[in-house]
Amino acid sequence: MSRADGRRDDELRAIKFTRNWLNNAEGSVLVEFGNTRVLCVASFTPGVPRWLVGKGEGWVTSEYAMLPRATHTRSDRESVKGKLGGRTQEISRLVGRSLRGIVDMNALGENTIVIDCDVLQADGGTRTAAITGAYVALTDAITWAQGKGHIAQTSKPLSQSVAAVSVGIVNGKPTLDLCYEEDVSAGTDMNIVCTGDGNFIEVQGTAEGAPFDRSLLNQLLDLGAAGCAQLTKLQIAALAK
Amino acid sequence: MSRADGRRDDELRAIKFTRNWLNNAEGSVLVEFGNTRVLCVASFTPGVPRWLVGKGEGWVTSEYAMLPRATHTRSDRESVKGKLGGRTQEISRLVGRSLRGIVDMNALGENTIVIDCDVLQADGGTRTAAITGAYVALTDAITWAQGKGHIAQTSKPLSQSVAAVSVGIVNGKPTLDLCYEEDVSAGTDMNIVCTGDGNFIEVQGTAEGAPFDRSLLNQLLDLGAAGCAQLTKLQIAALAK
Amino acid sequence: MSRADGRRDDELRAIKFTRNWLNNAEGSVLVEFGNTRVLCVASFTPGVPRWLVGKGEGWVTSEYAMLPRATHTRSDRESVKGKLGGRTQEISRLVGRSLRGIVDMNALGENTIVIDCDVLQADGGTRTAAITGAYVALTDAITWAQGKGHIAQTSKPLSQSVAAVSVGIVNGKPTLDLCYEEDVSAGTDMNIVCTGDGNFIEVQGTAEGAPFDRSLLNQLLDLGAAGCAQLTKLQIAALAK
Amino acid sequence: MSRADGRRDDELRAIKFTRNWLNNAEGSVLVEFGNTRVLCVASFTPGVPRWLVGKGEGWVTSEYAMLPRATHTRSDRESVKGKLGGRTQEISRLVGRSLRGIVDMNALGENTIVIDCDVLQADGGTRTAAITGAYVALTDAITWAQGKGHIAQTSKPLSQSVAAVSVGIVNGKPTLDLCYEEDVSAGTDMNIVCTGDGNFIEVQGTAEGAPFDRSLLNQLLDLGAAGCAQLTKLQIAALAK
Amino acid sequence: MSRADGRRDDELRAIKFTRNWLNNAEGSVLVEFGNTRVLCVASFTPGVPRWLVGKGEGWVTSEYAMLPRATHTRSDRESVKGKLGGRTQEISRLVGRSLRGIVDMNALGENTIVIDCDVLQADGGTRTAAITGAYVALTDAITWAQGKGHIAQTSKPLSQSVAAVSVGIVNGKPTLDLCYEEDVSAGTDMNIVCTGDGNFIEVQGTAEGAPFDRSLLNQLLDLGAAGCAQLTKLQIAALAK
Amino acid sequence: MSRADGRRDDELRAIKFTRNWLNNAEGSVLVEFGNTRVLCVASFTPGVPRWLVGKGEGWVTSEYAMLPRATHTRSDRESVKGKLGGRTQEISRLVGRSLRGIVDMNALGENTIVIDCDVLQADGGTRTAAITGAYVALTDAITWAQGKGHIAQTSKPLSQSVAAVSVGIVNGKPTLDLCYEEDVSAGTDMNIVCTGDGNFIEVQGTAEGAPFDRSLLNQLLDLGAAGCAQLTKLQIAALAK
Repeated sequence: MSRADGRRDDELRAIKFTRNWLNNAEGSVLVEFGNTRVLCVASFTPGVPRWLVGKGEGWVTSEYAMLPRATHTRSDRESVKGKLGGRTQEISRLVGRSLRGIVDMNALGENTIVIDCDVLQADGGTRTAAITGAYVALTDAITWAQGKGHIAQTSKPLSQSVAAVSVGIVNGKPTLDLCYEEDVSAGTDMNIVCTGDGNFIEVQGTAEGAPFDRSLLNQLLDLGAAGCAQLTKLQIAALAK
Repeated sequence: MSRADGRRDDELRAIKFTRNWLNNAEGSVLVEFGNTRVLCVASFTPGVPRWLVGKGEGWVTSEYAMLPRATHTRSDRESVKGKLGGRTQEISRLVGRSLRGIVDMNALGENTIVIDCDVLQADGGTRTAAITGAYVALTDAITWAQGKGHIAQTSKPLSQSVAAVSVGIVNGKPTLDLCYEEDVSAGTDMNIVCTGDGNFIEVQGTAEGAPFDRSLLNQLLDLGAAGCAQLTKLQIAALAK
Repeated sequence: MSRADGRRDDELRAIKFTRNWLNNAEGSVLVEFGNTRVLCVASFTPGVPRWLVGKGEGWVTSEYAMLPRATHTRSDRESVKGKLGGRTQEISRLVGRSLRGIVDMNALGENTIVIDCDVLQADGGTRTAAITGAYVALTDAITWAQGKGHIAQTSKPLSQSVAAVSVGIVNGKPTLDLCYEEDVSAGTDMNIVCTGDGNFIEVQGTAEGAPFDRSLLNQLLDLGAAGCAQLTKLQIAALAK
Repeated sequence: MSRADGRRDDELRAIKFTRNWLNNAEGSVLVEFGNTRVLCVASFTPGVPRWLVGKGEGWVTSEYAMLPRATHTRSDRESVKGKLGGRTQEISRLVGRSLRGIVDMNALGENTIVIDCDVLQADGGTRTAAITGAYVALTDAITWAQGKGHIAQTSKPLSQSVAAVSVGIVNGKPTLDLCYEEDVSAGTDMNIVCTGDGNFIEVQGTAEGAPFDRSLLNQLLDLGAAGCAQLTKLQIAALAK
Repeated sequence: MSRADGRRDDELRAIKFTRNWLNNAEGSVLVEFGNTRVLCVASFTPGVPRWLVGKGEGWVTSEYAMLPRATHTRSDRESVKGKLGGRTQEISRLVGRSLRGIVDMNALGENTIVIDCDVLQADGGTRTAAITGAYVALTDAITWAQGKGHIAQTSKPLSQSVAAVSVGIVNGKPTLDLCYEEDVSAGTDMNIVCTGDGNFIEVQGTAEGAPFDRSLLNQLLDLGAAGCAQLTKLQIAALAK
Repeated sequence: MSRADGRRDDELRAIKFTRNWLNNAEGSVLVEFGNTRVLCVASFTPGVPRWLVGKGEGWVTSEYAMLPRATHTRSDRESVKGKLGGRTQEISRLVGRSLRGIVDMNALGENTIVIDCDVLQADGGTRTAAITGAYVALTDAITWAQGKGHIAQTSKPLSQSVAAVSVGIVNGKPTLDLCYEEDVSAGTDMNIVCTGDGNFIEVQGTAEGAPFDRSLLNQLLDLGAAGCAQLTKLQIAALAK
């Protein structure tokens, strides 16, 4: 067993979804990937941004952020600095794209769902936890909207489920769901976003140290897809409660 | 019994302190005043800002913020807007002043403690919950720093405890610890910050509707001071665990 | 006589209102509290912000600022820094709330009055001078609007007058209307905003040094209310000219 | 007599300098060109910005701004908007350049003077009034600094005086020192900055309507230079008091 | 011959206009004044800003900027700093005014043309090159709009041509079209904007070192006007291709 | 032949590198991928940012931006808006990471290279053109620095070359080097960054429409890697001139 927390290379951390974490939001999930803890909140509002009005389509977007002390040392607030960092914007865009990849905007109708993913505690894999939890919050918000009559009960705004996981080369071996310590030492780092039926929505791989070859890339893709399949089952179980 | 949740006029909501809510912070407390839920995190760092270096004194400051969906409807993020609102800055300053009011900066030595108060769910009284929880987080951070030797074991950086509560005139009656619904309808709104030995650190009263007279002001001060005294006991109990 | 300028503890500084200090503004008053000099300008415009349209109510708001060399040493301009400081926003909000506390928005009708309070010279008590002068400028602007027919002559948009003063513990004694030097050394600092008939609109007290007890608080409230009563008389005299 | 206020075409408005308008500034002048009223304040500080340290030279710079209701209708504050407008920056730069044009930086030594020009009331020609008043405030600040020993009594940091005036084509005729109403209707608008001995520091002419020919340009230059000569005398008289 | 590149004092650098430098813009010109290289792009859009709607007039404006390494050493990007510098705004305003000086807004009709002038390489005279090139791009955009029927073929939106050049006192002699090295050493620096028929639109002269007298000013105006006349011929030739 | 410009599915557009496009920069390349035109400029400065001082390592970073009319319709400037968009920051980060992936920071020594990639004309694939051109500019800057003695002649700061290309599913077929029109219609879009010896530095694939399966992903990776190999040869040829 080579990992600090005793996991196998292809093993996820303990994954936990706490639904309805907030009283007022249409969907709210506290998702935990081990010590990583992200609050995913879906806010539903009838209507769409001006540039979409009258097209019969909905809109889904996302904003990702970290509390200042989610990390080992405190970071300055972006609200105080007066600007969003590149990392924040990049991840917000990734989460939004990943969710839009499974939403049928016509079935959603002229409604908007904003999904806020706020990292309360960060121990690696915050963006993949955010996507995985956001799907559950999004599902709850859509169910709520169908209950309230904002969306027809017969509509199917979600064409698929979506989950995401990180993989990387740690100590020379392809490894699933990296914690912060592993992430820092990983030679290559990859985030895989898959649908519940096993297709890819987004693949992002970066050589942090040495460039990687095709064979390693294939192994990481296999490992990530398998990890997403496990997360899909856990999402189904959480939504079944 | 006139209050929506069945409380007496002089009764606090259910108060709960969950210490060590984060793994890495020197002090972290999830404080709950009924449905109001604030994460108070104290970050300790040796050293002080440039303008204090060499004076032998420490520094304590605070930043308050709300998650976008802490409230009934979603608010835009201040980080996205690129500027801090007046309310945010006002409360950050209030929390900082309240904590500095009980800290002996010489006993703290040349160390800095930043206390982040992030409102996860808002149901009235977020600033008073923030102050009350921040005191517990601050205490834990100082204990941590004494354990690590950053502050001498014999130092007493905290000269007192501090707690805060809101009071107001609801349905014509002085009422303690207002929830959001009561706060909105209150004719006068007051925040009282007291030390554990019953003195005042800050008193802020505002006529939301009709101006208030001296007799009403006195009743509110009495009620608030008594509420702070109850909170002090709950803080002591939480810190004893 | 214990005060630097020879005043009794319960004595205001020389108070002066110069009305119509500007040619074009609907109301403009240069108010002086000793060396503190604030230009209070009320700008009247028919119509209200979008969120109020159609409700039959008016809107009153305020912006406070300091010229860079109003103080002993030059401060950087907030326009150059590109953001408003917390103190500026806090005082702007206080002035606006204090004025709205005496305005009958239905009688004002769908009209907006913005009151700019720019500190030309600061010697303590700038926020209380701003409120006190702003009331006079506001009155002049309303009279102007009634003269022009924007508001009916029979309307009474002002339900009361409003004045404000600072009080504090200086050299251990409750003291009225602190100048800068006294303010810096004050153990407790309080701003009192009262209506002309002696009720409170806002009470803000802060322990700058040691926390204060109820007896001291009561003395400060008495002193501040008496100071506001004197200011009310001076406002009446100024408006009678 | 063609001008609204009865002036001849080559006549200045009533010019007034009130020195020492502030208690604490090293130099402060309220300058009035008719109804245009600018507060010019010179702040002296020993030392220079980092990029000048050790060169034995001083630094002089300026910031120009307008109060929100200096004009006929209220303008939004640049501090609230969070950015400086182009006009503000352009005039700040012009005032700074004009003053630096007469300062001997070696004689000033490693000292900094910042001159704030805040327009309290605007009726045309605010930038030229600012330059003309700033020179008087600058002179007072240098005298102060020589009195305090920051600059040697024998140094001559000012090689010349400087004054500025606007000229323009109004009703087809070259006209001196335009008020707002004239400025708006002027076909060509020019600002002339001259030294006390009659040379040019800055010449800025703009065709607001039809382009202008060389002969008109020559007439405007003559008129402006003569206007500056009159202002120079008034500055000398003001400084002699 | 005193100039580094062998030019006579009254000689322009090699001037080059490359029209249609971009595929998609309505007008685009790469203008070169020696090593100074500015891309001037005119974007035509039907319609006008809100404050002009319904007046039957068009709008022309300009934005000037420099690439970070246009100069000898790299400058920080204004987009990264989050604010526009004073120089950038000042030149943008100058270019816009110069172009508006020759446009008949009624003939343009309710259409907007924005002219972006981006300095790719800077070797002095970037603002005058920008104006000179912008005229050519503006002409092309208007021709395009007439071809597309946005403006009537019979309309004449351009009442004149416009060109600009810098002049200055280098080594004591009036000199035309300064390169960077000359500009830095120039005692007086002037930018002249003229129409094709030899009138002035803008004249801006600044004493960088010693103030200048009327005789020198006259020589600079003569030299600049003659330089603009040469540029006018080159513009005509470029547009004839 | 299915492509608008007659290319085969696996064919690059005409690729062109113009080195030394600027006179003063240490490395400057105008790179063209068909109509996409990016100016890549490498600025070398001795020394490193503060957080790297004393470690013996260098620093390479990049900033990407678009001119306002690089695209079909004009976009507002980020400098005018006062903030960087998410796309800009994301691409700047990608270019920087890609270059750092081939730089041996110890061999570079305590020197900094900033590579500005400014898109002059955009027709798809601007980020991949930027990376491909930036490598050539970086190489030139390092050669310059070795010539000047800032880096030892025997050092090898570049461990590999780097090139990038986009691939996507257009009309159901894997397609290389998409132009704008193809990019808009692509079902899946991928950017591949490879070293000269055929390994991956970054892989980013996004399902714009339907999620993609593993077999399609494999085809895109093959196509992208082959495209990068062609670009590598073109880079070698360009650097050989």
